[in-house]
Amino acid sequence: MLPAESGSVGLVVPRDFTYDQSFSFKSGQTLPGFTLRFETYGELNETCDNAILICHALSGDHHCAGRHTPEDRKSGWWDNLIGPGKAVDTNRFFVICSNCLGGCSGSTGPSSTNPTTEQPYGTQFPFVTIHDMVRAQKLLMDHLGVRTLHAVIGGSMGGMQAMLWAILYPSFVRRLLAMATTAREGAQAIAFNEVGRQAIMQDPAWNKGDYTQEGGPRVGLAIARMMAHITYLSDASMDRKFGRRKKAQAANGDAYTFDMQFEVESYLRYQGESFINRFDANSYLYITRALDQFDLGHAYGSLEAAFAPVKAETLVVGFTSDWLFPPEQNRNIALALLRAGKSASYAELSTDLGHDSFLLESEELYALVRGFLERTHEPIVDFSI
Amino acid sequence: MLPAESGSVGLVVPRDFTYDQSFSFKSGQTLPGFTLRFETYGELNETCDNAILICHALSGDHHCAGRHTPEDRKSGWWDNLIGPGKAVDTNRFFVICSNCLGGCSGSTGPSSTNPTTEQPYGTQFPFVTIHDMVRAQKLLMDHLGVRTLHAVIGGSMGGMQAMLWAILYPSFVRRLLAMATTAREGAQAIAFNEVGRQAIMQDPAWNKGDYTQEGGPRVGLAIARMMAHITYLSDASMDRKFGRRKKAQAANGDAYTFDMQFEVESYLRYQGESFINRFDANSYLYITRALDQFDLGHAYGSLEAAFAPVKAETLVVGFTSDWLFPPEQNRNIALALLRAGKSASYAELSTDLGHDSFLLESEELYALVRGFLERTHEPIVDFSI
Repeated sequence: MLPAESGSVGLVVPRDFTYDQSFSFKSGQTLPGFTLRFETYGELNETCDNAILICHALSGDHHCAGRHTPEDRKSGWWDNLIGPGKAVDTNRFFVICSNCLGGCSGSTGPSSTNPTTEQPYGTQFPFVTIHDMVRAQKLLMDHLGVRTLHAVIGGSMGGMQAMLWAILYPSFVRRLLAMATTAREGAQAIAFNEVGRQAIMQDPAWNKGDYTQEGGPRVGLAIARMMAHITYLSDASMDRKFGRRKKAQAANGDAYTFDMQFEVESYLRYQGESFINRFDANSYLYITRALDQFDLGHAYGSLEAAFAPVKAETLVVGFTSDWLFPPEQNRNIALALLRAGKSASYAELSTDLGHDSFLLESEELYALVRGFLERTHEPIVDFSI
Repeated sequence: MLPAESGSVGLVVPRDFTYDQSFSFKSGQTLPGFTLRFETYGELNETCDNAILICHALSGDHHCAGRHTPEDRKSGWWDNLIGPGKAVDTNRFFVICSNCLGGCSGSTGPSSTNPTTEQPYGTQFPFVTIHDMVRAQKLLMDHLGVRTLHAVIGGSMGGMQAMLWAILYPSFVRRLLAMATTAREGAQAIAFNEVGRQAIMQDPAWNKGDYTQEGGPRVGLAIARMMAHITYLSDASMDRKFGRRKKAQAANGDAYTFDMQFEVESYLRYQGESFINRFDANSYLYITRALDQFDLGHAYGSLEAAFAPVKAETLVVGFTSDWLFPPEQNRNIALALLRAGKSASYAELSTDLGHDSFLLESEELYALVRGFLERTHEPIVDFSI
């Protein structure tokens, strides 16, 4: 690895942006205001046009680079991509990432206190859509003085947000980079989301969404996460990582047990248990429902119509082993952009790491991102009027 | 469809075979005896060599053809393949299918009464393996007077049993037809099994396996089944069957709800709810664990060593859209048989129906099965001694 790749943004402090006016959701419901927790890395330049917005996936948050304390074992979730000298170079760009509206890592969501009742919103929280998440992010951009986005970048649900950014604010977004995503949540993805929701909602501790943060449907949420985690990986990567290796006690002791026997079982249980300590079950319901609702073609009549306003340069990246949002679904985004007369590139990376490929270390991906961010933007002039 | 294809075995009556001697499991545990529920179609010929054994998958049972009553809405699970004039022609063959040992459709399993306690075995039932299932089936064959099997046929877990039949009783099995299966349960398949088991075992109603048939972990079992059902289908088939179509009430009413909104959600909930009325949660734990344990190469040192005793003609069928036991895993079985010096063919069928492709109507599959069963068996002579 080149020395330039090794830079870290260092210690970062999350901040809160509070919007204190009424905010209307697509559902018609409203909040008297909301807070978005966010982090920034690098400096906004004088012309306020070097900002890059990072959009996170279902279980992600605003902490995508650096560390909060020197003792942190892990850095932010996209630290390999973002930092001084990295593909998203914080020496040049002002990078912003916010926890999504409806989330549970500091932004207003179902676990936030409803000022009317002094209790958590629970299922009284408005239904949130990807559209609502993006509109809330736009208010944060305005607050930060960002005048234009050099790029919006996101994978998975973050890719959905990035696409909507380019559709809703075409003059604001100069580059759109969407990875491992889809323009339309398909039946299989909805089905997995529904099983996760059922695991949560059928847990008696869910109590129709009315629980304390210490209580709550911990069992159901862990089951949902264990299952979802499998969909982020691939058969090949799981076999390489775990194969049929057994836990030490199982290898030496009784092979006939329902207790943890294989390493992959232990890994999954760890994933489930660590998730329940950082994620709110109601947020999981809301955000998976937001994913289910996402269907750009239906919302705008056709995918070409959806992309008609886009002015951004566009790069879509699919990963061969991603079976949650497979390559075809990513390729189809680029094709629809092309049919709509837009600048669009599609790159397909051969990985065997599954959906999470967009998060993993890949010089090939870094080079694509770097090249895309260097690309000179020629604004698309619309001659059709 | 040709008229000859339309034959049905008609009304069938399941029977019970009771073995009243001590039976030792691979785990070292024993039962004082056991019962297998089974069905037969067609007649055993005078030379007792026209029998075909059908082995069922995880959630299957002995009822693979015909109907139990004229009112039955559904016929047996492989009725499209088995019957007079069909690919497995009951005019020629004596077809047998038994519910597996450890099952819950009439064969002895965890829901059976433990004669010592007069209570259901629950988790006191011996750990069962595919090996145990096959040995129990062999006792049934002996009881029925079957002297040789024209063929053993199975898909998924049934394919595992079929392979072990040819390994354990090489002189008894003349043809082995395994479909949509694997010689080695991989990490992803173990992972899905483990999530299902956790959903069951974390349901308070599981009560460490000690529950009445009316009670039990119905919620956990339904969650496990919903998830597993997704793995039996494919993204493409789910999208074709359900797409993003909404339930009538959701289409007309409130689009913002955690209640059933998409047809695929309704379908999955139906799958979960109908399963809990026919399947025992402890059986689900035992049989998924039997799947996890299955690794022929490890059990025999290598896959070639495992297949060394085989004398059967062999056909392995993989399905392109099967992502639970993908084509490669099926192809690898045939390749290992070839390396072991055996007669082995591999056919890969292009379907988009996923793992369950082996169950679905396919003239291409019928023709392969028919041709394989017609194939004259040339016994393999071992010149190595």
